[in-house]
Amino acid sequence: MVLDAALDFSNKELFPYLTEMDQQGVTYSDGKVTVHPQVYKVLKKLGEAGFLNATLSYEDGGIQLPYMVHYATSIIHTAANNGGIGYTGLTSGAAHLIISFGNEELKKTYAESMYKGIWQGTMALTEPGAGSSLSDIITKAEPATDNTYKISGQKIFISGGDYSDAENIVHLTLARIIGAPKGTRGISLFVVPKLRVVEDGSLVNNDVITAGVFHKMGQHGYITAHLIMGEQNNCLGYLVGEENMGLKYMFQMMNNARIEVGLTGVAIASAAYYASLKYSQERRQGRHPSPKKVDSEPVKIIEHADVRRMLFMQKSIVEASASLVFECAKYLDLTNVTDGEEKEHNLLLLDLLTPIVKTYPTEMGILSVSNGLQCLGGYGYCQDFPLEQLYRDIRITTLYEGTTGIQSLDLLGRKMMMHDGKALKLLLKEIHTVIKEASNFAQLTKYADILNAYLQEYQQVVSKLMALAGRGKLAQFLADANLFMELTGNIVLAWQWLKQGIEASRELENNSLAIFYTSKIETLKYYFTYELPKCKGLITTLNENELITLFKDNEPLI
Amino acid sequence: MVLDAALDFSNKELFPYLTEMDQQGVTYSDGKVTVHPQVYKVLKKLGEAGFLNATLSYEDGGIQLPYMVHYATSIIHTAANNGGIGYTGLTSGAAHLIISFGNEELKKTYAESMYKGIWQGTMALTEPGAGSSLSDIITKAEPATDNTYKISGQKIFISGGDYSDAENIVHLTLARIIGAPKGTRGISLFVVPKLRVVEDGSLVNNDVITAGVFHKMGQHGYITAHLIMGEQNNCLGYLVGEENMGLKYMFQMMNNARIEVGLTGVAIASAAYYASLKYSQERRQGRHPSPKKVDSEPVKIIEHADVRRMLFMQKSIVEASASLVFECAKYLDLTNVTDGEEKEHNLLLLDLLTPIVKTYPTEMGILSVSNGLQCLGGYGYCQDFPLEQLYRDIRITTLYEGTTGIQSLDLLGRKMMMHDGKALKLLLKEIHTVIKEASNFAQLTKYADILNAYLQEYQQVVSKLMALAGRGKLAQFLADANLFMELTGNIVLAWQWLKQGIEASRELENNSLAIFYTSKIETLKYYFTYELPKCKGLITTLNENELITLFKDNEPLI
Repeated sequence: MVLDAALDFSNKELFPYLTEMDQQGVTYSDGKVTVHPQVYKVLKKLGEAGFLNATLSYEDGGIQLPYMVHYATSIIHTAANNGGIGYTGLTSGAAHLIISFGNEELKKTYAESMYKGIWQGTMALTEPGAGSSLSDIITKAEPATDNTYKISGQKIFISGGDYSDAENIVHLTLARIIGAPKGTRGISLFVVPKLRVVEDGSLVNNDVITAGVFHKMGQHGYITAHLIMGEQNNCLGYLVGEENMGLKYMFQMMNNARIEVGLTGVAIASAAYYASLKYSQERRQGRHPSPKKVDSEPVKIIEHADVRRMLFMQKSIVEASASLVFECAKYLDLTNVTDGEEKEHNLLLLDLLTPIVKTYPTEMGILSVSNGLQCLGGYGYCQDFPLEQLYRDIRITTLYEGTTGIQSLDLLGRKMMMHDGKALKLLLKEIHTVIKEASNFAQLTKYADILNAYLQEYQQVVSKLMALAGRGKLAQFLADANLFMELTGNIVLAWQWLKQGIEASRELENNSLAIFYTSKIETLKYYFTYELPKCKGLITTLNENELITLFKDNEPLI
Repeated sequence: MVLDAALDFSNKELFPYLTEMDQQGVTYSDGKVTVHPQVYKVLKKLGEAGFLNATLSYEDGGIQLPYMVHYATSIIHTAANNGGIGYTGLTSGAAHLIISFGNEELKKTYAESMYKGIWQGTMALTEPGAGSSLSDIITKAEPATDNTYKISGQKIFISGGDYSDAENIVHLTLARIIGAPKGTRGISLFVVPKLRVVEDGSLVNNDVITAGVFHKMGQHGYITAHLIMGEQNNCLGYLVGEENMGLKYMFQMMNNARIEVGLTGVAIASAAYYASLKYSQERRQGRHPSPKKVDSEPVKIIEHADVRRMLFMQKSIVEASASLVFECAKYLDLTNVTDGEEKEHNLLLLDLLTPIVKTYPTEMGILSVSNGLQCLGGYGYCQDFPLEQLYRDIRITTLYEGTTGIQSLDLLGRKMMMHDGKALKLLLKEIHTVIKEASNFAQLTKYADILNAYLQEYQQVVSKLMALAGRGKLAQFLADANLFMELTGNIVLAWQWLKQGIEASRELENNSLAIFYTSKIETLKYYFTYELPKCKGLITTLNENELITLFKDNEPLI
């Protein structure tokens, strides 16, 4: 029911505006930002429909919608209009932070209007000198009266940061209270509204101005603001939770946001896959190489091996990446209904998979959309088809919410190390269970064996890396984190395909939906034949000890 | 001297307009096309300077400039403004066709004004129903009087196809004379001007109208036209050379155009590399993992291993791709000064390398620019830096002049097969000579051995594929042509790096320019450690016999 509603909403309110939002973009003049009018309509409609707080508990006003369903809904929305739906996710995420860590007054004064879709929410982290390195944040918070602080500083790259339709914009802002410790341990979280609510309930200007908007390659309908807070010394911020705990709180939002960026990669790549599939099923060009009949009508291009390869590639990336998003949703949901050791296991698996689900669907999603574009030949490069826009839109996803480099350091330097590698052990157990199950199906045995062999080589790579970490050679340990991420992602996706293969094999034994499930098995074969062997090169490189990328003092820079 | 002039010209006339041309784009209204005024100025200035016909023989009015120098010049121009310089290359190429195959009258009437940079030239091949499959061209040529033909039909994706500044536009057009054989053997080449020259030397309208312009992702300053010829039954074309030989003639231009598209990939990726290198040397963010000093000033991001990897990747692609362009220029130049068997060998090597030099620098160039963009974080996605535009611009290069799929079929289906694989034998001999020479340098022995080992595996793959061709299994033989291209390209680039390594090792023995040459050796190591191992996955896939991408009747489409 929820998914049907999402599809209906996407068809009516999102997809029809995809191109328009791209072409009209955002305008900024005299400090005023204008976005496509449909943006605010969507936010309000989804707010009214109870979509923004659906995943919250009953106590917090939600309907306890499982993340599994919520993310499936989000994929549908995002595939229809990735820029247009961004506003909603941000507002939800920002309000969730208030609900989780804020006091009753903040909940009532700010979160309620955000969930209604009347006020826009944002996360205001990045500063001109602090992007990937959040420890360098310098926005200042000076204690004023009654738990309020005077905020002053600049925030850049603030998605949804300002637009005139919205009644108010509420920035969940990281800042440093005067005298706080240096680094990440001195960062606090504040609610900094564009208009603050005063005693009589009215809204007054809170000295947050928009100094400019960023002109981006894609997501033209999604405003990215440069904000200046407190230029007139009249910007009040409201502390969320305790002092100096800001980064820890923010990571609750950020972890979900990372899954959602991965989900955005899945959604855009999925839209591109279906658009290129449709074109390939209709466009006729060329003939089969053998027998080559010049006189015959040209064939549909989906019949050409190279076009099929590009379609299989997309399908193999999109469907297993979606499946990985749902795997994460499963662990996220389970953490809400389990206790003790079980809960700990679910949390560990979620933590380990988060940087992977952020990275694989976005890095490979970019290549997937590029393959979609290529299927259309010259038309792919033109605005006549959506591929051109989707190719520009998806490029941001490896930068948002921590670049691929940052995610890779998180995976190798933090997630692999936590609790002595316990998360990895749990993951390997999951994968081995699937391998064992897959071996029961004749058509999957070969692939189960292949994955098993790669896992053994993977574990040798892990041991080698852990040994470096153990000897305190941290720089060397982390130097190829990006390749380790690519290797891990590739193996994790193979696991997802094997899971899908098991389901498909079961269903085929029942003769249900033969075309759908046969195509799943074919795509699994594609993945294991064309994508997974890339691990061989990665393993070879990771087993080298050349230290080429490592910085050494006085070495000539390239 | 020529290169210095090219750099000076690029700095003054090309680079300052890169962003402007992108932002102003092309306007089309009431059938009239307007492009940035600098476009025509560049064409005329380079025409006046004698640049457009510089490679021609003295007899044909040129200065016999070697292609080696011409292409080096083109890389400089193209790196400065890839869209703006496109007009010049097209005009040259179109005029060369007239010089090579046209009669004296066509040379005098059309080619002269083109070389002067007063008239724009184009190649008009593609039609709505005939893109990759040129055999399906239907533009009609009906014999009229005196070697003239009435032309009627539509041509799409015509670069430089129309703009109001140019005095005239001359389309080198493929069309089918009434009654000509079907397929590629019935295609003729015509000069179809926008304004035709009549007896008194004046110009009259020739019934070529622009029905619209294409709105592209990038190269916004480079007009792409949809032309309609002969709607009023008043469009005259002048036959170039003999009837039905059009495709053969056109391939002279197309072969050079393919090298030049590869060169465009090199040039754009090179511009992106230097822009991201500069940013990485200036931007400070984060700290080394060990020892991590929170209090210290952030380091330059070029010191981070992951940024270094992305820079090395770009350098390794750009410099070896440029080197491959020059390798092709060498063979092209040599064909002009050799005879007999030697000339045949040079031609064979040029033919074999042409699809590779079209493909590797463009496919890998796209990834290279993407790495450049990634170095800049969020700024890479914004118009504040050139990466954003270069990322959009380079995406066309795997489509222009035959897509990667077409180049791959050309490489495997035609070039590997010609003269019983003689071209490949010659190439392998060249590579083995370099491997042997590299083995004389201690620091290169390891890499010479690695390439040697890959070559053996490569030859096994070739044997397997040739056996399929020999058994008449053409569809199966060609199904993975794209992967075969990627594998071949990777090996060919390793060969180029080994050549550079030999030069660098020699120079280092003389202690000359140590930083420059040490960086070459480091980049060679990067290539062999990070890029070349990708062959392992490709070889594994090519040795599989799954036939996943092959079209089989009645198989469910994905």
